[in-house]
Amino acid sequence: MTIKQLFLEKEQLKNNTDYQFEGWVVSNRGNDNIRFITLNDGSTIDNLQLVIKGNIIKEKLIDEISLGSSLRVQGKLNLTPKAQQEFELVIETLDVIGKVDEDFPIQKKETSIEFLREIPHLRNRTRLFKAITLIRNSLLFEIHKYFQEHDFINFAAPIITSNDGEGAGETLLVDDESKNYFFKQKAFLGVTGQLHGESYAQAFKKIYTFAPTFRAENSHTSRHLAEFWMIEPEMAFFDLNQTVLFADDLLKTVIKNTLKNYPAEMKFLDNLQDNNLLKTLDKFISTKLQIIDYADAIKILEKNKNVFEEKDLYFGVDLASEHEKFLSYEIAKGPVAIINYPKDIKAFYMKQNDDNKTVAAFDLLVPGVGELIGGSEREINYDKLVKRLKELKIPQESLQWYLDLRRFGYAPTSGFGIGFERLVMYVTGTANIRDAIPFPRVAGQIKM
Amino acid sequence: MTIKQLFLEKEQLKNNTDYQFEGWVVSNRGNDNIRFITLNDGSTIDNLQLVIKGNIIKEKLIDEISLGSSLRVQGKLNLTPKAQQEFELVIETLDVIGKVDEDFPIQKKETSIEFLREIPHLRNRTRLFKAITLIRNSLLFEIHKYFQEHDFINFAAPIITSNDGEGAGETLLVDDESKNYFFKQKAFLGVTGQLHGESYAQAFKKIYTFAPTFRAENSHTSRHLAEFWMIEPEMAFFDLNQTVLFADDLLKTVIKNTLKNYPAEMKFLDNLQDNNLLKTLDKFISTKLQIIDYADAIKILEKNKNVFEEKDLYFGVDLASEHEKFLSYEIAKGPVAIINYPKDIKAFYMKQNDDNKTVAAFDLLVPGVGELIGGSEREINYDKLVKRLKELKIPQESLQWYLDLRRFGYAPTSGFGIGFERLVMYVTGTANIRDAIPFPRVAGQIKM
Repeated sequence: MTIKQLFLEKEQLKNNTDYQFEGWVVSNRGNDNIRFITLNDGSTIDNLQLVIKGNIIKEKLIDEISLGSSLRVQGKLNLTPKAQQEFELVIETLDVIGKVDEDFPIQKKETSIEFLREIPHLRNRTRLFKAITLIRNSLLFEIHKYFQEHDFINFAAPIITSNDGEGAGETLLVDDESKNYFFKQKAFLGVTGQLHGESYAQAFKKIYTFAPTFRAENSHTSRHLAEFWMIEPEMAFFDLNQTVLFADDLLKTVIKNTLKNYPAEMKFLDNLQDNNLLKTLDKFISTKLQIIDYADAIKILEKNKNVFEEKDLYFGVDLASEHEKFLSYEIAKGPVAIINYPKDIKAFYMKQNDDNKTVAAFDLLVPGVGELIGGSEREINYDKLVKRLKELKIPQESLQWYLDLRRFGYAPTSGFGIGFERLVMYVTGTANIRDAIPFPRVAGQIKM
Repeated sequence: MTIKQLFLEKEQLKNNTDYQFEGWVVSNRGNDNIRFITLNDGSTIDNLQLVIKGNIIKEKLIDEISLGSSLRVQGKLNLTPKAQQEFELVIETLDVIGKVDEDFPIQKKETSIEFLREIPHLRNRTRLFKAITLIRNSLLFEIHKYFQEHDFINFAAPIITSNDGEGAGETLLVDDESKNYFFKQKAFLGVTGQLHGESYAQAFKKIYTFAPTFRAENSHTSRHLAEFWMIEPEMAFFDLNQTVLFADDLLKTVIKNTLKNYPAEMKFLDNLQDNNLLKTLDKFISTKLQIIDYADAIKILEKNKNVFEEKDLYFGVDLASEHEKFLSYEIAKGPVAIINYPKDIKAFYMKQNDDNKTVAAFDLLVPGVGELIGGSEREINYDKLVKRLKELKIPQESLQWYLDLRRFGYAPTSGFGIGFERLVMYVTGTANIRDAIPFPRVAGQIKM
């Protein structure tokens, strides 16, 4: 029995029922005759009130039990429908399992989020990080569930690879201590599982990865990590339009279910911030996704260029963060998909449209987060791919296996990547991506 | 609609119903008047028989459609209860989506598993690798489901870490191109998420990781990879006995459900081998797990030492592969948990038993695979941990955060690691671990 289950079943609870719980102390108040301890077991941010009377108080040195101590307790439920706390557990036996040294850095009074970032192994004891962790877990499982229910097969793309991914160059290298090419060649940490995923979509139609990916990003922004998790579905026989709609439905479903799974946590996060978190998410769920052609987006931005630092807006320019924010915040007032980007600012494998200028790609922009999803149809034409590789000076040899897929019964595929921590940011209203993953890794910093 | 669903619903199918399918050609036989094509869509190893008559044969050049081509077809179902194939699709429209060049290395006749290992991007088109991939996917999702239904929270341990894990030294190093310490210190690829996981078990009670782990293993065996996936649950308030029983129930449940999810695939794998795969798995599911104390295991081995190459068997010796095999194959005739190993052959963090000689650890040995699971209670005593680190010459400083967990309301935890590819081997009867993961990585080899 978890404390979450107890709260979920609170309408059916019966007075005087016997329960046993294990957990950690959140608060301890009262006097020598009666004490109130609130206990948390990590299943929810809600705490169970324990009432301790009589001999136990002195026998078990209840006075000394401080915030963070672990307990095992047994007692009888007391329904108190008129009190703020609708039920409490009247304790019969209590064991102190682990005590807390005085230098425990988590205290009842608020500690800054920056300070907590310095102690990632302990910050999970706070209400805020409990809520974020529970939401993260819910999103993870709902995503797996959604894919499995839609006939997708999970695919483990290799993490260590000989490919430099999208050719961005921002890759981390792997070797053993001797630094003598353990893998007999240069080995990278994957920046995407997509190329490998395409080969599995050619046998299983719909596949998805859910795995860590890596970038040697030197930017210290609130939206970048050197190590982050990505979800990459790849679907054979899907075109761009189907793919955008699928991404939209996936997001709406997993967010809707997560709001249902963790109402107390979402309410807590909503109250914490002044960004109308719940209202924003509810609106997203109930509104049709806006889709804007890149060319139209440029026209809209050009009309509003007085509000931007970067005013040089023309067909072919890569959108800056300020432009993306404007499009989602001000124009769409929510998530928006920008489609048909110029081919010169996108990856070599994206399908070239008939206009010879654009590719069948999309980015899903989200207020407060920026790019949450990036995806495309993949180029099906072998010769076009070879030509594009030459233009971009990417050696063909190491990608020959990828090109060859086009020669062996290739069904057109589309796919996208969701930055999982960015999704956690969006749903929890977290402003810094370092708070959306347990042990964040950025340039110059790998605590623990 | 997938072909798998069609086969699942075969009792309810109605003659003349209209269906559309997309997939890849498995075979094409017949003449100018009637052709039979079998189609696979990756949802199952079962194929759908397409019947093509009349004009379409010439119009669509059906003759030229070879193994591996991708098709989109539409037609009417024809029930043929007396035929070997209980139903077929009589085609009305057919589009050839992708053709196959002549050098397609997958052909109807059997190709060797070693040859297929050279083309990991194409071997998934064979029946064998389709079956393995589907079973792998089922095991993955059933594991997530099992944990979520048992109130576990998924936890993302960091992949890049400053800790050398278990101090085994077989770690891979990470840096950027400049090799100038991108992370300002030596950075490793994690060999375990357990230490970090313990910190989360101290807030959420029951957590699990499901993530890639890495070893710079130079051994080229059929049971080792440089990159493999591991599942690591960590449970607060659990002791060794509860943990072994939990591992057993987890395995039995996910295997039982997988047998139910993919009966055709399991039957195919069973027929392929002479190792009584299904019988073995059924027996495991229905039999109580055997648990043998390490000290007793040594006595058993000592009595049978004439069958071993390594005959020097005494309390304190690390079991060799031949000993493990004997214990599971000959003694337990199935999976067996060996508990209470000598502390000198186990990791520093394992709980020291009162005998001062052994630790509360277990390995789960499985026929054909060897060690499938390794786990233990964790040492709760701060001073014992410090002493053990000194004995093993592991620097305390970088693990101070881990030791500190013992000072801040520590609830005793236990946990274990399941090698996911070894589980896939066990359930599919695969003899080489390189066939249990899509793109295997071993020393000297990172294809694609």
